[in-house]
Amino acid sequence: MKYDCIIIGSGPAGLSAALNLKLHNKEFLWFGQKDMSRKVRISEKIANYPGVPMVTGEELNGIFLKQAEEMGIEINDQIVTQVSFTGKGFMALAGNDIFESKAMILATGAANAKGFPGEDELLGRGVSYCATCDGFLYKGKTVAAFIGDKNYEHEVNYLAGLASRVYYFKGFKDEASEMPENVELQDRPIKEIKGGLKVGSLIRTDGTEIPVDGVFILRNSVAPANLLHGLELDGPHIKVDRQCRTNIKGCFACGDCTGRPYQITKAVGEGNVAAHEVLDYLAELDKE
Amino acid sequence: MKYDCIIIGSGPAGLSAALNLKLHNKEFLWFGQKDMSRKVRISEKIANYPGVPMVTGEELNGIFLKQAEEMGIEINDQIVTQVSFTGKGFMALAGNDIFESKAMILATGAANAKGFPGEDELLGRGVSYCATCDGFLYKGKTVAAFIGDKNYEHEVNYLAGLASRVYYFKGFKDEASEMPENVELQDRPIKEIKGGLKVGSLIRTDGTEIPVDGVFILRNSVAPANLLHGLELDGPHIKVDRQCRTNIKGCFACGDCTGRPYQITKAVGEGNVAAHEVLDYLAELDKE
Repeated sequence: MKYDCIIIGSGPAGLSAALNLKLHNKEFLWFGQKDMSRKVRISEKIANYPGVPMVTGEELNGIFLKQAEEMGIEINDQIVTQVSFTGKGFMALAGNDIFESKAMILATGAANAKGFPGEDELLGRGVSYCATCDGFLYKGKTVAAFIGDKNYEHEVNYLAGLASRVYYFKGFKDEASEMPENVELQDRPIKEIKGGLKVGSLIRTDGTEIPVDGVFILRNSVAPANLLHGLELDGPHIKVDRQCRTNIKGCFACGDCTGRPYQITKAVGEGNVAAHEVLDYLAELDKE
Repeated sequence: MKYDCIIIGSGPAGLSAALNLKLHNKEFLWFGQKDMSRKVRISEKIANYPGVPMVTGEELNGIFLKQAEEMGIEINDQIVTQVSFTGKGFMALAGNDIFESKAMILATGAANAKGFPGEDELLGRGVSYCATCDGFLYKGKTVAAFIGDKNYEHEVNYLAGLASRVYYFKGFKDEASEMPENVELQDRPIKEIKGGLKVGSLIRTDGTEIPVDGVFILRNSVAPANLLHGLELDGPHIKVDRQCRTNIKGCFACGDCTGRPYQITKAVGEGNVAAHEVLDYLAELDKE
């Protein structure tokens, strides 16, 4: 089936867009994290959100979650690793599944807009955002895995079952879980990914180099430029106009990914605008 | 004293801006209605405001009011009838008082963007937005008063004490109060204000004409183009960029007055953006 819209990102902007599409009975998929927004959750005190005075991030995130649930809106927690514009709509790749839609709303946040040096260049040539998709290519080989969120640790286990050796780079604060014997937890972060036609090695921040055949990068979101080829950026942000339109027809962006201020209030406002633009866009398509 | 900022408009956009300026300890004045937003209040059910699920307009307006109160933010309910850009800041005229500020946020709403035909042309030449300012000019003369909100009915009484005759045009739904003998309540609305060098007459919607010397128009907000000379518009809306900047340095606009969608969520988002731009603007001024 072809959905009316796909929303990528479960922060305040994505939620705001989802509420509006739901109220207008649109068929849409919403990709994100089941517990919604880590960035909201870790906010200590929010004093400037109109309508919810003096609230902790944890509380506000809980209110958002409950509101989505009560509206019957579900979050699909597969990670979308690639989006393609087909000229008549969009295809989103999540794990090994492909989803199609008429319109697209990117609400991917700002935190992970920047990748490692070498990441962009070697994407698809040894750098992968999806262990279950590409892991089989590395049977008996040496790989590195960067895990940006503890939720994705199971991907390291998956890789350990295929590769002979897995260098595990941890990008979150919690302790790492116990791992199979062929997994080596690294204490020095990745500085750069090196290679020519294919990935060859990793440089760590202390300057030491380790040879690897592949690098798996599991973040909560993929940098916009890598997510959707041809998307126009403005520095690290997605370039949009006042209607939240990107340079790609039918593709809208909202929230932190479009730029400062990185504020919940700004994000919900843009999510609302993006959803209304999608409604107009779908109405136009229907006329054609 | 010169304020850091003046906010005009007490809808969701104005509130959002006010919350942020308050949190940053700025000295500002907030003009609007004591009961905040009529447009929010009359909304039957709001289902798409993130963080406050399924709420009536009356309830949400109450939450907004309480939040402002708890933050120690007060609404000044004088009507600002004119704003001037002095090159180094702004002067706002409200009643007979003048207030000065470094920056300006217009959050005046969309409802009253359109005036009567002839209103713009004859403003200051018989058309006035302020009875207490200009009423004395019409001693013993015949005037008309358009009252857009029952809150301003006392202005009719004031005019009746000066003018020989007052044609009272009612622009709100409630019943009119009892009036002095020289006030004539009109049942046919104003179609057009006519005049040459000065106001000469009013045309009512049935085509009948009544001679008047002056026309007092009391709305909750003044159309942006009449409020601030030189402000660039885009149709009936104030033209702004993604940072809510208008064409006038230090003047920002947010909410319904900047265009569709006319949504509370969009309005609070823009109020947040406008306030953050004001903070940046004030910081720049301090460097000079």
